[in-house]
Amino acid sequence: MKTVKIYDTTLRDGTQAEDVNFSVEDKIRVAQKLDELGVHYIEGGWPASNPTDERFFKEIHHYALKNAKITAFGSTHAVSKNADNDPNLKSLIASGVDVITIFGKTWDIHVKEALKTTLEKNLELIKNSLLFLRPKVKELFFDAEHFFDGFKENKEYTLACLKKALEGKADVLVLCDTNGGTTPSEIRQIIREVKKELPHANLGIHAHNDSELAVANSIIAVEEGAIQVQGTINGYGERCGNANLCSIIPNLQLKLGYACLPEDNLRLLTSTSLFVSEVANLPSFHRQPFVGKSAFAHKGGVHVSAVRKNPRTYEHIKPELVGNKQRILLSDLAGQSNILFKARQYGFHLDKNDPFVLELLAKLKELESQGYEYTAAEASFELLLNRVLGRARTYFTLENYRVLETKRKKEEPISEATVMVRVGGMLEHTAATGKGPVNALDNALRKALEKFYPCLKEMHLIDFKVRVFSSLNRDLAGTASKVRVLIESGDPKHRWITVGVSFNIIEASRQALEDSLNYKLFKSDQEKLTKALKEASEGF
Amino acid sequence: MKTVKIYDTTLRDGTQAEDVNFSVEDKIRVAQKLDELGVHYIEGGWPASNPTDERFFKEIHHYALKNAKITAFGSTHAVSKNADNDPNLKSLIASGVDVITIFGKTWDIHVKEALKTTLEKNLELIKNSLLFLRPKVKELFFDAEHFFDGFKENKEYTLACLKKALEGKADVLVLCDTNGGTTPSEIRQIIREVKKELPHANLGIHAHNDSELAVANSIIAVEEGAIQVQGTINGYGERCGNANLCSIIPNLQLKLGYACLPEDNLRLLTSTSLFVSEVANLPSFHRQPFVGKSAFAHKGGVHVSAVRKNPRTYEHIKPELVGNKQRILLSDLAGQSNILFKARQYGFHLDKNDPFVLELLAKLKELESQGYEYTAAEASFELLLNRVLGRARTYFTLENYRVLETKRKKEEPISEATVMVRVGGMLEHTAATGKGPVNALDNALRKALEKFYPCLKEMHLIDFKVRVFSSLNRDLAGTASKVRVLIESGDPKHRWITVGVSFNIIEASRQALEDSLNYKLFKSDQEKLTKALKEASEGF
Repeated sequence: MKTVKIYDTTLRDGTQAEDVNFSVEDKIRVAQKLDELGVHYIEGGWPASNPTDERFFKEIHHYALKNAKITAFGSTHAVSKNADNDPNLKSLIASGVDVITIFGKTWDIHVKEALKTTLEKNLELIKNSLLFLRPKVKELFFDAEHFFDGFKENKEYTLACLKKALEGKADVLVLCDTNGGTTPSEIRQIIREVKKELPHANLGIHAHNDSELAVANSIIAVEEGAIQVQGTINGYGERCGNANLCSIIPNLQLKLGYACLPEDNLRLLTSTSLFVSEVANLPSFHRQPFVGKSAFAHKGGVHVSAVRKNPRTYEHIKPELVGNKQRILLSDLAGQSNILFKARQYGFHLDKNDPFVLELLAKLKELESQGYEYTAAEASFELLLNRVLGRARTYFTLENYRVLETKRKKEEPISEATVMVRVGGMLEHTAATGKGPVNALDNALRKALEKFYPCLKEMHLIDFKVRVFSSLNRDLAGTASKVRVLIESGDPKHRWITVGVSFNIIEASRQALEDSLNYKLFKSDQEKLTKALKEASEGF
Repeated sequence: MKTVKIYDTTLRDGTQAEDVNFSVEDKIRVAQKLDELGVHYIEGGWPASNPTDERFFKEIHHYALKNAKITAFGSTHAVSKNADNDPNLKSLIASGVDVITIFGKTWDIHVKEALKTTLEKNLELIKNSLLFLRPKVKELFFDAEHFFDGFKENKEYTLACLKKALEGKADVLVLCDTNGGTTPSEIRQIIREVKKELPHANLGIHAHNDSELAVANSIIAVEEGAIQVQGTINGYGERCGNANLCSIIPNLQLKLGYACLPEDNLRLLTSTSLFVSEVANLPSFHRQPFVGKSAFAHKGGVHVSAVRKNPRTYEHIKPELVGNKQRILLSDLAGQSNILFKARQYGFHLDKNDPFVLELLAKLKELESQGYEYTAAEASFELLLNRVLGRARTYFTLENYRVLETKRKKEEPISEATVMVRVGGMLEHTAATGKGPVNALDNALRKALEKFYPCLKEMHLIDFKVRVFSSLNRDLAGTASKVRVLIESGDPKHRWITVGVSFNIIEASRQALEDSLNYKLFKSDQEKLTKALKEASEGF
């Protein structure tokens, strides 16, 4: 089988993204995850550029990696130095890795304007830097920075740079579209010309996404013979990002028939994408190809019914291949047939003319117009469905609550909540403090309820998301905007998401908290009932 | 100059996106904006599919468009009907447009499984539907659904479908990669084969982004002779979205030399992108090529210094061409040189060894580690800079505050804030209510301050964003998560963004609110000072 080497630079070029900053600990965790996924190379950083990267190389030696090799990145030696007294090259060697990548200028305007040296001198920098490193490493790669821009303006010079890199004994010449402005047809044609000129050179590709063409440019380079592809998880990187490995890898494996990852590892792709976005503390991009939450989500009525009959009708690959899954969405566009389908998932076989279905549709429409959103908050939807059908008990009623925030001078603010909760015939009145008003309310509610419902002790809150509606209506703008709160909760066996909407963030949170507690109680009842029925039928 | 027609389907296929829902009013506003941008066709919707679309076609006739033609979308007639008694075709005609697009099945498995009819019958549906509509419209397009998937499995049948569409007198045959799974090389080769078979047919392209290849596939289709490109603003659309016109248009105009929009209109692209995301109530995607906030943002130290010397070094096009702009970011990666550059923007020519610069760097590092982020919140940064340099007065001190949330039974919750604010020697103690706790605090603060600083009356809050840190640390999860609040404020002349961070959303909001008020007062002082100095120098 044809193979391509995957070179991940999330930890180096990825951190050039506007909103990505990794600590040393973050970098170690991401490296372990990338190794598990099975990429061939993990570019750990540029040791000379900052202390985080330097520390990363010290730390990572303590971890045994099973698939990937760690690489260090740096530039050719400084114009004012020689290779053997250049601190940048020294720090590359000090990083203790077996694989080093150095980048050199290949676009003449960069040589003159950024490096401020002669074209001739730059050729020396490339060759001498590589020759100096060569005996000290097992593999040595040359990143030809701005190769395609350079080629379009001064073809001879860029080729001269590549030849010097070969004289310097680089194993792979990585052609970089640093500014991301090159089109697929240009990539194809330029690589063909390079291949003609240097038929025995191993080529790699390093593309940026400024023209939304990085994935296409990368796979076209592979079609033209590139043996190494550089990119980042989720396409993180400076400006519009680097070539997205989460799209390149499945395209190469599933469409072009190349082996990139160890067998069966492609199914780790979605979880790797989520993990990296979580460590980077960035929201995941729902529409992201292959691994995004929406990548196999179906909303339109026509599509939903076709895809249920045969997934191939609207899915280009099986979502499970990349560890993703199909989702059927709740939406007014999809109409009744979707509601009925969802209801079936919860065990209700309803008829579309059932008056409860009509009530549910009307209620959903009303709630959606207020800003409630059940696409993510399925637990709130399941509760709503069961309430409309009269299947959910009223476990408690929060009669009154009060939240008090007090801040004096330079002290930390104090948050305190009081709640009055009715459970059956009992009225529980209690209070609690917390880290912030929502946490205080949460603590007070639990304090009031746990004595009646001890099973609530095993549940905890996992995540809390706030979405402010950025209304175009001036009256709703600013601090009086409407907010939607999503709360994710979990117990040892399940996770669920609930929703609340209000002008008031505390009130919106209260709704989502109540739904979350109710859902836990409802599920716990269902389990008990299932168990009792099972025992009864066995006894019978 | 070579031209390509741009066919926008944001209002139809774009609304299939998981999180996009447009009201009729939204659709009208987007259509006007698209017309202003200068696309050739605006697909308004599928009148038979839902009442919103039907109403849109009734309404849009009242608006004079200067560039675009409105088109209506529908399917070939139903298997059980004839063209002249099919309600779907009737509603297309009833929409009153001059341009109609109908889609037909061209992949055999769809004909058999989704349409449940014979291959022969489907050919009739295509031809008869088109022939029926032909005399009723000026332009008639045929969307060949799943064309590329069909071609790969049953080439003869897909070509037979296209031939029927030509017999039905369609003006353009739009080849659809409905599932988004086709690679650029396949697109090129298949279009070449179609061209060989149907040398006189006008072809169009309709790509989806499931493999992150939609933009490449679209421009390759144009290189191969397609005269119409279908796509959506920001790439909105089902699953991973449609081909993104915000990338296709500049690629075609600036890289491939095609005319797409009226002269000079390309610079409206960024504002169109933002407008549509605002109407769709979706956050804009910062890394979006060409029009994204990060598209021309520079963070790395090396890049920042090069791009300042010559923007071409790290920018593939001039950002102004698409209405975007260059941004230099604050970040620890960029180090001192960036801080000095930023400081210069605010009028401070500092030396890098200045002890104030070192203090500022240490302070920034400390704040960033707590979660403060100044990339967006430049006003907070400017205040911080001026405070460290001793240039900002203390306009007020919020000594104490208290926020009280009360909710009784089914009533709406009441939010009330009390503040004790010191201004010079005066202590102002007051209270206010609001829509939610943050709004109440905002109202109370203003009430206390406006009598001392009447200029605060002219400022207002524009937007309020909350970001919850989704910590991997279990102790910080759930409702006790740390939150970052960004507040955007404005007066008749400026807009500014401030930041606050805390475990407590009210406290984080308080910080951002205080910064916002302080910034307004600081700027107003600066203006007065500039004016006074100017008058003094003129008098002198």
